[in-house]
Amino acid sequence: MNVGATHYRSIWPIGDDAVGIVDQTKLPHAFATRTVAGVDDMIAAIKTMVVRGAPLIGVAGAYGLALAMRVDASNAHLGIALERLNAARPTAVNLRWALERMHAALAPLTAAQRARAAWLEAARIADEDVALNQSIGGHAERLLRTMHANLKRPVQVLTHCNAGWLATVDYGTALSGIYQAHDAGVPLHVWVDETRPRNQGLLTAWELAAHGVPHTLIVDNAGGHLMQQGEVDLVLVGADRVSALGDVANKIGTYQKALAARDNQIPFYAAVPSPTIDWSLHDGSQVPIEERAGDELRQLTGVNESGDVGSVRIVAGDTAVANPAFDITPARLVTGIITERGIAAPADLAALFPEHRRAA
Amino acid sequence: MNVGATHYRSIWPIGDDAVGIVDQTKLPHAFATRTVAGVDDMIAAIKTMVVRGAPLIGVAGAYGLALAMRVDASNAHLGIALERLNAARPTAVNLRWALERMHAALAPLTAAQRARAAWLEAARIADEDVALNQSIGGHAERLLRTMHANLKRPVQVLTHCNAGWLATVDYGTALSGIYQAHDAGVPLHVWVDETRPRNQGLLTAWELAAHGVPHTLIVDNAGGHLMQQGEVDLVLVGADRVSALGDVANKIGTYQKALAARDNQIPFYAAVPSPTIDWSLHDGSQVPIEERAGDELRQLTGVNESGDVGSVRIVAGDTAVANPAFDITPARLVTGIITERGIAAPADLAALFPEHRRAA
Repeated sequence: MNVGATHYRSIWPIGDDAVGIVDQTKLPHAFATRTVAGVDDMIAAIKTMVVRGAPLIGVAGAYGLALAMRVDASNAHLGIALERLNAARPTAVNLRWALERMHAALAPLTAAQRARAAWLEAARIADEDVALNQSIGGHAERLLRTMHANLKRPVQVLTHCNAGWLATVDYGTALSGIYQAHDAGVPLHVWVDETRPRNQGLLTAWELAAHGVPHTLIVDNAGGHLMQQGEVDLVLVGADRVSALGDVANKIGTYQKALAARDNQIPFYAAVPSPTIDWSLHDGSQVPIEERAGDELRQLTGVNESGDVGSVRIVAGDTAVANPAFDITPARLVTGIITERGIAAPADLAALFPEHRRAA
Repeated sequence: MNVGATHYRSIWPIGDDAVGIVDQTKLPHAFATRTVAGVDDMIAAIKTMVVRGAPLIGVAGAYGLALAMRVDASNAHLGIALERLNAARPTAVNLRWALERMHAALAPLTAAQRARAAWLEAARIADEDVALNQSIGGHAERLLRTMHANLKRPVQVLTHCNAGWLATVDYGTALSGIYQAHDAGVPLHVWVDETRPRNQGLLTAWELAAHGVPHTLIVDNAGGHLMQQGEVDLVLVGADRVSALGDVANKIGTYQKALAARDNQIPFYAAVPSPTIDWSLHDGSQVPIEERAGDELRQLTGVNESGDVGSVRIVAGDTAVANPAFDITPARLVTGIITERGIAAPADLAALFPEHRRAA
């Protein structure tokens, strides 16, 4: 997507020995890019959410492995690098998926062949993510167009966290359809959940503003009330992992939005590329839920009174905090999963991907 | 309640021509008191939430009227002061209730009698609030004690916003029972919702820490997940207005918690003194929902990198925001209303207060 007049992806190769990324911890206060020169840098970027979003984490992991292969492409180092990258974020399945794919591509090769092959495979995964997101967006755009035709007024979408181009390589998952619908002239307005504790909703608001999509930022507490007031037509989110039966692991707070949607007869959709679907998982309760550092609640960054980017500590260091980063929305609350192959109710998800159904 | 070794109420008379209040916008970063010398000061303190919490707003309104009567106790000024105070916060019914009671006490008197009478009536309302909260706490304490006897482990309570002594004159509504149970040796742990945008959960955490009650601060997004994990035994909140049929108007986000409680078979209670019950209101959808300034979302106060209290702007001024301050939890999601007369299911609330049932 464009930032000003320049087209950016959220991650890109620099020559053949470094990777460029958008530093998402600086947004929305500043747009900055960063060069990642080695696997340690990439692991740190994933852990500290300099790169974030399930699809992007997968691609970042693939490039991280490629960077590791440039230093030492031995079997031993391949194994270590895979293990360390895998441990960087436990909930998003895309990371595991991308690393397994990298492993499958690299394992049969000699050490001498691996660095080049890894670089190409990571680039392929990145390009495929872009293509998947374009397809997802096409299906979502048709859904939004139909809703607009029925409602005869702008469609009111509520989204949680950031499932935009910043969370993927480009276009986004949930936001891809919003961009496509907006570009096609379907009038929309997006309610953007702030998404505490890390406020990824600010990334969503920044993306939507850059693209000219009408939107309003709200606290995570407000969505249920807006639904009661008839101000929301559908909830549209991304996901970090979807089970074979359609349970949706996504950013903490998604489950509460799905409950409110159900209580107000509002459809709830998760938009995901197929690598986000964990076919080995029937029950969402098996998804490991990452517990992140308490300082994510305690401290907030913004523009201070001097006009500089600065932080304030809103919670004293001795206050106990808990910070589960994800929750599971059970399939019974999910109207549909929007994939690159189309939209399916949870019960019909496997039918869209018969190759996996057979494998399961 | 005590702050250090000193017993404080949240509001108190100073001589007979000023009122002391705790400045709640400074907490939890600093404990400061403020002297309110006139009705304009009091209106500003209510509007900017220097004083907040439905029961406290009622008492603050009563003292505000008493301050107005010291300057000019004419019928005209009485009417104007009542109107201005009433408009300071639209959702909490306690303000209207307290002002109606003041009006009833003052209207029959001569202007010369009103200043003194107003002062005494405001003090009576304050003392009654303390007594009501002690009774509420006794009923809640028995509930918590019974739960502990059944669970045979610490009772896990989730609360939203601040319904503690800071929200009342003393003891609190929802927290009164927690304090009494804790003091009586019932083991408890409280999950404290941060409660964006104004983070009144930080006031609750501050109160609980001062009283030694085990607690953990969480973002508003986390409660549903904790309930799914079996980490919450009951939800206990205050309220700004309760309809005759038990619909609960409370801080934005309460409805989402009630939905999650229902989805996980967890009881949901609202603790309210009877002045919070609006017997004229059958249906919660008639409650006016205050829309507050967008800067409440945009800006946050804490301790900055220099160790001073400072603010950061987390959202750009040109980002559209919406900030509804309350929502309605329908009676169907409410297990019980805890009043000074006991605990009643919504359908049985009127039976606890037959004098109002007759009036309705």
